[in-house]
Amino acid sequence: MSVLVVGSVALDSVATPFGAVEEALGGSACYFSTSASFFSDVQLVAVIGEDFPEEHVDFLASRNIDLSGLQRSHGETFRWKGRYEYDLNEAQTLDTRLNVFEQFRPQLSDAHRDAEYVFLANIDPELQLEVLQQVKKPKMVACDTMNFWIGGKREALIKTLGYVDILVINEAEVRQLADEPNLIKAAEIVRGFGPRILVVKRGEYGVLMFTDHAVFSAPAYPLESVFDPTGAGDTFAGGFFGYLASIRNLDEASLRRATVFGTVMASFTVEKFSLERLKNLDIKEIEERYRHLRAMTEFSLP
Amino acid sequence: MSVLVVGSVALDSVATPFGAVEEALGGSACYFSTSASFFSDVQLVAVIGEDFPEEHVDFLASRNIDLSGLQRSHGETFRWKGRYEYDLNEAQTLDTRLNVFEQFRPQLSDAHRDAEYVFLANIDPELQLEVLQQVKKPKMVACDTMNFWIGGKREALIKTLGYVDILVINEAEVRQLADEPNLIKAAEIVRGFGPRILVVKRGEYGVLMFTDHAVFSAPAYPLESVFDPTGAGDTFAGGFFGYLASIRNLDEASLRRATVFGTVMASFTVEKFSLERLKNLDIKEIEERYRHLRAMTEFSLP
Repeated sequence: MSVLVVGSVALDSVATPFGAVEEALGGSACYFSTSASFFSDVQLVAVIGEDFPEEHVDFLASRNIDLSGLQRSHGETFRWKGRYEYDLNEAQTLDTRLNVFEQFRPQLSDAHRDAEYVFLANIDPELQLEVLQQVKKPKMVACDTMNFWIGGKREALIKTLGYVDILVINEAEVRQLADEPNLIKAAEIVRGFGPRILVVKRGEYGVLMFTDHAVFSAPAYPLESVFDPTGAGDTFAGGFFGYLASIRNLDEASLRRATVFGTVMASFTVEKFSLERLKNLDIKEIEERYRHLRAMTEFSLP
Repeated sequence: MSVLVVGSVALDSVATPFGAVEEALGGSACYFSTSASFFSDVQLVAVIGEDFPEEHVDFLASRNIDLSGLQRSHGETFRWKGRYEYDLNEAQTLDTRLNVFEQFRPQLSDAHRDAEYVFLANIDPELQLEVLQQVKKPKMVACDTMNFWIGGKREALIKTLGYVDILVINEAEVRQLADEPNLIKAAEIVRGFGPRILVVKRGEYGVLMFTDHAVFSAPAYPLESVFDPTGAGDTFAGGFFGYLASIRNLDEASLRRATVFGTVMASFTVEKFSLERLKNLDIKEIEERYRHLRAMTEFSLP
C-alpha cells in the first residue's frame, strides 16, 4: 500500500566532529520517503526551488517514489545549516532559510486525495491539518512535530492531534507538550490529545512506544561510529510507517516490529552524511540488524 | 551461596521536588546488601559510628544479613546530604562528612576470607584491592566506582580492575574511564582493563551489558512516580550480583536474568526515600515486574 508524506525537502550543510558537508540532500520528507520506500510505495508532497539539483530528483525517482506532488517553485530551495558537538544528541542550528518552503500550501491531486496512509512530517500544524482534510478517507494518520510548534502553535497542534492515530516525537517534546516531567505520565496526557499510539524517540537510548495495551521498549542499534545524526528521526518514522502500511495492520505485534524496523533504518542513516548510507543499502542488511536487535533484547523467565 | 560486600553505611539527608528526609539509612553497602538479601545470603563489611541508630542494625539483621563485619568505631557515622531537581538523573551533593569512614581499613575475619562471591562497592580503589587480597579464593568479583576515583586514582583503579570479573558503573563513567565519547568503543576499552563483563547503568534509560558474546539491553522499569533515585545503582548491583551468586553461573542467559532482577530491584528503591520500599517488598512483586519487563521488550521476527 502507498504512503503519502508531506514535509520538507532541503539542502543541508552540516558539521560534526568527524567532518562536514555542504548543501547535501536533506529535509524530513526526503529522509522519510527514502526510508519508507524500502517497505512500501511512497507519494511525496513537497516543494523545491529552481536551484534544486536534478541528481537528487533522479535519486528519489530511483527509489520508486511518486514525485508528481514535488512542486518546483520560483526561488531557492529550503536550506538548513547546523552543527553537532561530541554529544551528538542535539543539533545546534546555525542558519535556517525557508525560501520557497515559506509559501508552501500543498494542494493534493485527485490521486493523492485517495491516500489511505498519511504521514504529516514536521511542518506547521495548521498546514498539517489543511493537508489531512484534503484526503478523502485516511485509514492511518501519523505525524511528527517539534518544540517550535509546541511552544508557538500549541492550540493548532492539539487540534491537529485530534485527527492523528500515531504521534512520533522526541522525549523532551513529549514532556513539553504534556507540561509534565515524568515521561510515563506525560505519555498518557499526550495520548489523551488524540493519538492512541505514541512513539517516543530517545536518540541513542532507543524508543518507547505507548499504546492502549502496553509500553514497548526498543534500544537503539549499537554503533561504534555515529557520523551524523541528521535525519535519524525522520528515517525512523519512514521505516516505522512504511512497514505498517505494507502490512496494513496496527495490532501490537505489528507496531512493535514497525518500531524495530524504524530503529534499524535510523541506524544506517547516522553512519554517513545526508542519505549516503541509505543510497547503498539492501534488504539483507536491514534484516541482519533486525535480528541483531532481537538477540540484544532477549532474556528468559527465571 | 553467600555474597560478601564491602562499602559504606551512611545516614543520608535528601531533598527532592517531592519531599525531604533527614538522616535516613543509606550508603552503598546498605542498599546493596538489602537488595541482594532477596536472592542470597549476605555478609556486610562496613563501619558505623557510635551514633548509628540501633533500629537500622535491627533492620539489616531482619534481612538475615551477617553483620559480624559491621564494625562500630568511636566517632560519628558517615553522612551524605544531597538534592535532586526535576531532572532526577543527577544528584547535587550538598555535604559529605566521612567521619568514621575516613579511617576505614577493613580486616576480614577468617570466615569472610573464605567468601567466593565478592562485591566491592564504591570506595577508594586501593582499599578495594586491599580487601580483595584478603579473600583466599574468590570465584566471582564485581565492583563499582565513581568519577571521583576515575579522576583522582586512575592508576590504582585500573590495577584493581585487573582482578575484577564484573564492573558495574554509570554511562558517563565508562566514557570518562575510557576517554572515549562513543559508548560502544568505550565499553571495549574498559573491558580491556580486566572486567570481562561490563554493566553500564543509564538511569531512566536502563542498562547495557557488554560481554564476550554480545551486548544486552534492558530498559528501566516504567514508573509514574520516581520519588528519590538515591541508592538505585547500588540496589541494582545487589539484585544483579545476589541473583548470580544464588545460581552460581555466569553464562550469558544468567547474566541477562541478573540484569533484569537488578533493574526490578532498583525500580522499587526509587519509589520511596531511603530503603523504605525495600522494607515492604515481597518476592511476588519482584516476579511481577520481571514478567512485565519481559512483556515490554518482546517482539517477533517479521
